[in-house]
Amino acid sequence: MFRKIFVVIFVLLFGFSLSKAADSIKLPAPQLDGGKSLMQALKERRSERSFSPKKIPVNVLSNMLWAACGINRPDAGKRTAPSAMNRQSIHIYVALQEGLFLYDAKTHVLKPIISQDIRALTGKQSFVAQAPLTLIYVADFKKMGNISDDEKNFYAATDTGFISQNVYLFCAAEGLGTVVRGSIDKDALAKTMKLGDHQKIVLAQSVGYPKE
Amino acid sequence: MFRKIFVVIFVLLFGFSLSKAADSIKLPAPQLDGGKSLMQALKERRSERSFSPKKIPVNVLSNMLWAACGINRPDAGKRTAPSAMNRQSIHIYVALQEGLFLYDAKTHVLKPIISQDIRALTGKQSFVAQAPLTLIYVADFKKMGNISDDEKNFYAATDTGFISQNVYLFCAAEGLGTVVRGSIDKDALAKTMKLGDHQKIVLAQSVGYPKE
Repeated sequence: MFRKIFVVIFVLLFGFSLSKAADSIKLPAPQLDGGKSLMQALKERRSERSFSPKKIPVNVLSNMLWAACGINRPDAGKRTAPSAMNRQSIHIYVALQEGLFLYDAKTHVLKPIISQDIRALTGKQSFVAQAPLTLIYVADFKKMGNISDDEKNFYAATDTGFISQNVYLFCAAEGLGTVVRGSIDKDALAKTMKLGDHQKIVLAQSVGYPKE
Repeated sequence: MFRKIFVVIFVLLFGFSLSKAADSIKLPAPQLDGGKSLMQALKERRSERSFSPKKIPVNVLSNMLWAACGINRPDAGKRTAPSAMNRQSIHIYVALQEGLFLYDAKTHVLKPIISQDIRALTGKQSFVAQAPLTLIYVADFKKMGNISDDEKNFYAATDTGFISQNVYLFCAAEGLGTVVRGSIDKDALAKTMKLGDHQKIVLAQSVGYPKE
């Protein structure tokens, strides 16, 4: 009886924390030396739709996120990818088995959002759940200034294209497979991700080692 | 008198040919060996808005267009940049002082379109006319299949983003400056370029050596 009450009280007090997201992940500093040439990466650039479940090491993840839209000019806070009017309105969410994280380029940290594994919710193809990592590109319409919604949609798409191609080339250089995808149930996914009305999902991109 | 008649007849007979475009430019094979690493190119990626009038050598132009969306898997005709449903619907027009050309990835040839120098018509900023080369990205809506116009606009924008980022990285690796631009009088430019109704201008990108 006391044990039962104790369990109830314990769950009431601490139960919510069980569904809370994991801790922040401080990524190691990106390694910019060495690696394949740009032209070789372009030669090997391709879309891969068959993934091994092998996880991506954290140093590789660090390099990939920096390549995607990391800060390459710390004094000005400018990035590896351009953005319309330098508004940097695309955010990268990282869906792992461990949960959903938001990449903070300034601190080079993955911030926890939810602990749920949402990879399978980012597309209908069977490989989507297998790839160990899914990037979800989300535009913050609030950051895009005083332009029409059509223009916001347009620049959200171009700006995501810039970033996504960086990921493609990084994967080509690193022996990773990747494919970018536009066919997403965006309303359902936005709800699961707890996005606000001003946050619009643009594309998703699966990343992993190719199945052998 | 006879001389005057002769001149009139000559102009009538041959005058139109004076406004015809130049010959095709067969680009040398792209040079894929050597060059900077991908990570170094990402580190140096930036937007440049001040250009020297120095022309871009044809071998550099060849490498840049191949990097942009050249064929990297000849057997399948696949490209350095992805495209929605692999429809490869973005075409690159190249505006030079000598005229406007269309890049044909299959043959790696620049095909003449018009002999007019239209660089200054691709944007209002003063540097636009100075940069020796402007890429104009044009989506062929006819090639995009049975999707809505909204979807066509969206994928035209993402697919142009992929290509444009390749150009950014190539320029960073090669010591060239570049900036992509969305603010274009697209209707007027399309008319000058003699585009069809199914051809939509997406973005323009100036390329040249940075002014010292």
